[in-house]
Amino acid sequence: MSIPDERIFPHATGTAAKTVEKRQEPQDLVFYSGWFCPFVQRAWIALEERGIPYQYKEVNPYKKERHFLDINPKGLVPAVEYKGKALYESLVLCEFLEDAYPTYKPNLLPSDPFERNYARIWLDYISKSIVPAFFRLIQAQTSEKRQEALAEWNKALTQFAEKIKGPYFLGEEFSLVDVAIVPWIVRDYIVAENRGFKRDDVGSKWIEYAARLEKRDSVSKTSSDKEHYAEIYGRYLRDEAQSEAAKATRAGRAIP
Amino acid sequence: MSIPDERIFPHATGTAAKTVEKRQEPQDLVFYSGWFCPFVQRAWIALEERGIPYQYKEVNPYKKERHFLDINPKGLVPAVEYKGKALYESLVLCEFLEDAYPTYKPNLLPSDPFERNYARIWLDYISKSIVPAFFRLIQAQTSEKRQEALAEWNKALTQFAEKIKGPYFLGEEFSLVDVAIVPWIVRDYIVAENRGFKRDDVGSKWIEYAARLEKRDSVSKTSSDKEHYAEIYGRYLRDEAQSEAAKATRAGRAIP
Repeated sequence: MSIPDERIFPHATGTAAKTVEKRQEPQDLVFYSGWFCPFVQRAWIALEERGIPYQYKEVNPYKKERHFLDINPKGLVPAVEYKGKALYESLVLCEFLEDAYPTYKPNLLPSDPFERNYARIWLDYISKSIVPAFFRLIQAQTSEKRQEALAEWNKALTQFAEKIKGPYFLGEEFSLVDVAIVPWIVRDYIVAENRGFKRDDVGSKWIEYAARLEKRDSVSKTSSDKEHYAEIYGRYLRDEAQSEAAKATRAGRAIP
Repeated sequence: MSIPDERIFPHATGTAAKTVEKRQEPQDLVFYSGWFCPFVQRAWIALEERGIPYQYKEVNPYKKERHFLDINPKGLVPAVEYKGKALYESLVLCEFLEDAYPTYKPNLLPSDPFERNYARIWLDYISKSIVPAFFRLIQAQTSEKRQEALAEWNKALTQFAEKIKGPYFLGEEFSLVDVAIVPWIVRDYIVAENRGFKRDDVGSKWIEYAARLEKRDSVSKTSSDKEHYAEIYGRYLRDEAQSEAAKATRAGRAIP
């Protein structure tokens, strides 16, 4: 029996489709992607931002192919195949790209040890506070739960926004902290249209920061047409999605 | 009104007390600790393992002092003060020690980019699968929840154990993956005595690995007398603990 997510739209569209077309040649690094996935978009932005050569391969995570499962038994996207071995986890992939391609600029983590790990604290904050709040908000089905989840999402963003040095989170340089949060900025219109979210409620600093990030070239290059996101997020809004993130949120567990 | 955790035993005992005594001199790096905390123990092991000079300061996280809150507003331990600025989050601290003290051996992350990030995948696994399972198990109050939590804990350990290359997780070298899991090996007698856990149920590879890790010098040096842990974990076993980890577990949230 097919589950709804298996019938997902099969490929990137819009600007992202052009990026995919340019990245078909075989390379040492194969990037296994799901065009719609915010976690995928993080690693994809890092690749595009730094001009790292990669081959793009679309995977429907609900219909996993043999070779992909052979190198990556958990079958999660994003994943990278590098000289026949697989790595996964979006932020680990971004760290891997820093470590394996140090000469590709810009580096997305500061070289100073304190600053570098200050950035990692905020990556951790995004993973533990902002991302789960987003999923709880889109999946909330009762008015009471929606109110609660909206308050939590606003609070998580506000605490983050207070620490934005400007123009980017860490200051002058675009960094992995910006990469890690921007897929949820690009998708915040879903909670604006369906759950009463307003960037205004987070404040003017946030409004400026969010607008700056969503215009970034590497972000546009990895974004598809809105109509296809709408189809996917409709399942979340009705709490019917079968992704690992959706299931974990439903069960009150950490997103794997 | 005082909450139970405020009356926590105030300092390290046993072997750990001797370590504390040796680490009283002022240093560039101040280590803010709670002697009983498994997250603290990770960073403490990394410091001792690598012989990094540090000054030990005990903080009761439920009665936070002024200077500590000034540098570290969230007030979490473990924390590190380095040239007047604070960092926190146990695994971020371990990464910081790698970045800031690269010449102190052994390095706990492999230098090869693939291996280094393979290690980070398993650090992520420990944070998302093993640690939350431990807290759910000790805090479980009904027989049904205990059974379920024990099965989950055993499964999380078994999946990890399958990947142990031996003698250490990544092979010949003791690494941050071993550091990250060992505080829960040192404390597994709590679930053995109170929740029916047996290392046998995870298998012989696990038994050997766990025994090897708990004998490690840096682990003994950062471990206190069992009687004082018993007092603290009694609160978890009755689900009365007020730590951030305990509260998050109770609420079905990610451990902050």
